[in-house]
Amino acid sequence: MNPRGRRPGGADTRTAILEAARGEFAARGYAGASLRGIARAAGVDPRLVHHYFEGGKSALFTEVMAIPLDPAATVAKILQGPPEQIGERIVRTFLTVWDDPQYQPTLVGFIRSVFVDEARMVQVQGYVATDIFGQVIAAHPHARQLPPRERALRAGLIASQMLGLALGRYVVGLPGLVRAPAGTLVERIAPVIQGHLER
Amino acid sequence: MNPRGRRPGGADTRTAILEAARGEFAARGYAGASLRGIARAAGVDPRLVHHYFEGGKSALFTEVMAIPLDPAATVAKILQGPPEQIGERIVRTFLTVWDDPQYQPTLVGFIRSVFVDEARMVQVQGYVATDIFGQVIAAHPHARQLPPRERALRAGLIASQMLGLALGRYVVGLPGLVRAPAGTLVERIAPVIQGHLER
Repeated sequence: MNPRGRRPGGADTRTAILEAARGEFAARGYAGASLRGIARAAGVDPRLVHHYFEGGKSALFTEVMAIPLDPAATVAKILQGPPEQIGERIVRTFLTVWDDPQYQPTLVGFIRSVFVDEARMVQVQGYVATDIFGQVIAAHPHARQLPPRERALRAGLIASQMLGLALGRYVVGLPGLVRAPAGTLVERIAPVIQGHLER
Repeated sequence: MNPRGRRPGGADTRTAILEAARGEFAARGYAGASLRGIARAAGVDPRLVHHYFEGGKSALFTEVMAIPLDPAATVAKILQGPPEQIGERIVRTFLTVWDDPQYQPTLVGFIRSVFVDEARMVQVQGYVATDIFGQVIAAHPHARQLPPRERALRAGLIASQMLGLALGRYVVGLPGLVRAPAGTLVERIAPVIQGHLER
């Protein structure tokens, strides 16, 4: 009856799914929210969620949080390749994205917003621990065989190094990190990441 | 005439110095502020500033920022000892202080406040780069002989690792870092710090 009403294939469906995802992430955190629950809250078939958001939960989170690119999809891409160069690919891709003026202001705004909003922080924590750095551990032949607690520790160590780099270079602006060419930072930090995966 | 007026030796002098320091740090940043300028703004002799704040600029900054202990004094203390264990002493002392319920809530509040207040961030940036991690570089026989740009880079790399650890374990709460015993974190992170000093 109402031509602007919710329907499969319409823009309203997409909006309804996004709104439902925002509510589910806020209520349950990233790890606790499910695509099924989001579909239910939006009143749509779960397959429709996949139709609109091919990247699944991570793609929904990226859009809800207004992050300018899907980090989990980016990480998935760079994990393809020799495991002994994972550290290098992570640091290089990270710097390429953050150094890009198309992304940097939004990423800086995003990371600063996380530290003022407790609810946002809890959601991001689950996202970072599971989808981003959990993925990195799972991609490494040695690290992925470790017990869960050890895997979580390594994911945390890698996450803290990358978080510190983002804050030091782009937010706080520590002169030694701001002035360094990306290549130099890759050279110094990649072995740290690789060490957390291999030892 | 006024018994509550500013005078050498009175509580008002101390307060006047603190207020002047707050103004100077805000106007010039940490690196740009001088004890002489602070004394002038407070209308007191520079020797009085040293009398009230033995730790000098760092002690003033610590009190102005309401940080519950003087980080530069703490770092100066742990730098005494064998240079090949600087990394270990830094990480261990850092975790001892941050894990202490007497300090942790204030430190977490402080670090979160930095990311919302641009002016505060600029001041902290100068403090961290010069007094904290500049000191660490200056204490290491190899690192202190490097060219200034390289010293700044290493200070930045160490700072970013420690910042990432603080945020990951105490602010964002990444499970792998929260659950890890301090000893395990020392074992994994100390070699990273030491590597930035030695290579």
